[in-house]
Amino acid sequence: MGGQPLRVALLGCGVVGSEVVRLLDVQAEDLAARVGAPIDVVGIGVRDVAADRGPAVPPDLLSSDLTGLVARPDVDVVVELMGGIEPARTLLLAALRRGASVVTANKALLAEHGAELHEAADAHGVDLYYEAAVAGAIPLLRPLRESLAGDTVTRVLGIVNGTTNYILTRMDESGASFSDALAEAQALGYAEADPTADVEGHDAAAKAAILAGLAFHTRVTLGDVHCEGITGVQAHDVDVARAMGHVIKLLAICERSADGRGICVRVHPAMLPRTHPLAGVREAYNAVFVESEAAGQLMFYGRGAGGSPTASAVLGDLVAVGRNRLAGGRGPRESAYADLEVRPVGEARTRYYLGLDVADRAGVLAAVAQTFAANDVSIETLRQDGRGDAAALVIVTHKAAEEALARVVADLRGLDVVRAVASVLRVEGE
Amino acid sequence: MGGQPLRVALLGCGVVGSEVVRLLDVQAEDLAARVGAPIDVVGIGVRDVAADRGPAVPPDLLSSDLTGLVARPDVDVVVELMGGIEPARTLLLAALRRGASVVTANKALLAEHGAELHEAADAHGVDLYYEAAVAGAIPLLRPLRESLAGDTVTRVLGIVNGTTNYILTRMDESGASFSDALAEAQALGYAEADPTADVEGHDAAAKAAILAGLAFHTRVTLGDVHCEGITGVQAHDVDVARAMGHVIKLLAICERSADGRGICVRVHPAMLPRTHPLAGVREAYNAVFVESEAAGQLMFYGRGAGGSPTASAVLGDLVAVGRNRLAGGRGPRESAYADLEVRPVGEARTRYYLGLDVADRAGVLAAVAQTFAANDVSIETLRQDGRGDAAALVIVTHKAAEEALARVVADLRGLDVVRAVASVLRVEGE
Repeated sequence: MGGQPLRVALLGCGVVGSEVVRLLDVQAEDLAARVGAPIDVVGIGVRDVAADRGPAVPPDLLSSDLTGLVARPDVDVVVELMGGIEPARTLLLAALRRGASVVTANKALLAEHGAELHEAADAHGVDLYYEAAVAGAIPLLRPLRESLAGDTVTRVLGIVNGTTNYILTRMDESGASFSDALAEAQALGYAEADPTADVEGHDAAAKAAILAGLAFHTRVTLGDVHCEGITGVQAHDVDVARAMGHVIKLLAICERSADGRGICVRVHPAMLPRTHPLAGVREAYNAVFVESEAAGQLMFYGRGAGGSPTASAVLGDLVAVGRNRLAGGRGPRESAYADLEVRPVGEARTRYYLGLDVADRAGVLAAVAQTFAANDVSIETLRQDGRGDAAALVIVTHKAAEEALARVVADLRGLDVVRAVASVLRVEGE
Repeated sequence: MGGQPLRVALLGCGVVGSEVVRLLDVQAEDLAARVGAPIDVVGIGVRDVAADRGPAVPPDLLSSDLTGLVARPDVDVVVELMGGIEPARTLLLAALRRGASVVTANKALLAEHGAELHEAADAHGVDLYYEAAVAGAIPLLRPLRESLAGDTVTRVLGIVNGTTNYILTRMDESGASFSDALAEAQALGYAEADPTADVEGHDAAAKAAILAGLAFHTRVTLGDVHCEGITGVQAHDVDVARAMGHVIKLLAICERSADGRGICVRVHPAMLPRTHPLAGVREAYNAVFVESEAAGQLMFYGRGAGGSPTASAVLGDLVAVGRNRLAGGRGPRESAYADLEVRPVGEARTRYYLGLDVADRAGVLAAVAQTFAANDVSIETLRQDGRGDAAALVIVTHKAAEEALARVVADLRGLDVVRAVASVLRVEGE
């Protein structure tokens, strides 16, 4: 343990920050042995110095002068756990440009301004680690940027938002409606009072941008991600999925285009066969499923949020930064050499499930089938259930482009025999 | 790509080696961009220079002078894919001592002589990477030695042998006997003509030693691992497990002892609840389930063997070594500071399932129950099925020490009302 201590400043000290401080204390001896030098917290920047943060956080380390904290020349690493774009962006850029390494859990900042942060880290020869930003404690950063560095990733499918996965699990397992399942998630603390960022898919979209960047060696920002949430998922859709041997999940999908020269990144609910490894990921757990040319199928599973899991990821990064400093080097830099084009979602190709309410009379099937054929979308299965003068049609297509399917839906809505296009869901995982 | 090429020598060129050579060729441009310098294969050491190795392997690179190859001063990295202890050990020590980094997939060598190799790497400031040695393409080395470096791992449960998992999956899903399932695995190429190393658990035990060393920062060798194979698993046991909502898996278990100061490493078949994430790992897939104090439960899933998955892991290591060389540094060193005591398997505590054939007469239950109580093993559930003058007893215990359970079994065998202790299986995953 002879090395100079690694001096750490924290920005933000909520649930994750205070757990990081606590673990740095109780595991001090182990961490020092693993790094080769002790880790010292020299300052904690917070908005309200007077707020109670529990017994683990020494009050004399608290400061509301965050700018002064990142400018301190004795700080080796800045750990940012405050979230949001500003002032986090300005503070971290200042830290990097001063020669401090950065560990952050800030997915929104990385998804918007990752390139700028990476460039500052490269220019000043310091580390930028962010394992905690995607899927909490699940190690993804190192597998994607190191273990699979010799392989070609073709697709990443992720369940990266615990709130929505909890809601969809309850809808599947108890038949609850979306609003009842959301209320239950809120009561248990899995969903916030304002659940918009989770249920509309924004949180998952930021993570999808980061995952796509790592998987495809390409800069991807939040604006590149097509995003749909789960507020439109009906109990009936969940029932139909179950009857088809499927389950509905909110998926972050990053995939190479058929020609290999572009990528598509999208977040939306989708049906997944129950035999798929992601289908068994229940409640607030997260998992990321990776398909690559040589390694084949991989899956990484664990807790995606919470104070302790996120703190574990932050500490792993801190140990890595500490080891790098002591060895006089740094970890892997950003790899964005491939610079693949991000294609519009209309070019994404997948299978679709459609539920239609139609009139039960001669010629209906022919009209519906003709609509698919005219748009070059091939039907894989079709089931009709009569209900008096009306009927329900359940259709699953072969792979088709999003834009072709959108034309089918618009055309179906124009048919007088179609009373409603009740559900449209993508079918993934095959 | 301006850097000096990374010059690589391969030892061994079978299924994995020729796939590594092929991928280095077809992905040359991507790999050079990721490393920052091209990767050149400068020599391939093999026993038989004349053997046909397919179109990807340039015959002029082949040499049977392996000692000369590792001594070449222009070789930066030696990739060892020949397997076995000698001459691999001598060759790799020579390479490390000459200042070459090593990438190896040799689990047996690491499980026996890992300490010696790590010491040589440290003494000469070079890298020793071995992601491919455990669970093929599944990234485990980096998650355990880097991502979880700030956490305290309490237990690792792994399905790390594809052959036995295939056999047990067939026994579970088709009701096949062990010998029929083995024959099927052999016909499909999942099992070797001599399946001993797989079915007796030796292969899993070597991987368990490596996993335990990484998880607990302690040197663990093959001799420290208690090992039982699956040849004694009966179709009847599989049926009983299914009736109990369980499945039988060959598990590699590395866990901290109750007092936190020791570890126990064991490989044996065990019942696992079907709700456990490992229970859904089918056929030749591998998965490693990690429990840690802060991160909670994590699982890593993927292909554990095969030319391409193993080659993917080797290439990931090669990229890491190349990046380290270019940055003038090296990756994380061995972390064995904790030096925990490896405890005998008798101290391991788990739950047990026992199947007994007993006489169906008064006093039998009392005698059996008394045997458990006398050895301080507590019964959780007991079910008796009468069959004329005989009866079958199915007993599941609470957690008990292995040595206490062994005394129970010996004492039961001594009771005249017990005709046979038909099955004893550990119950894990709760």
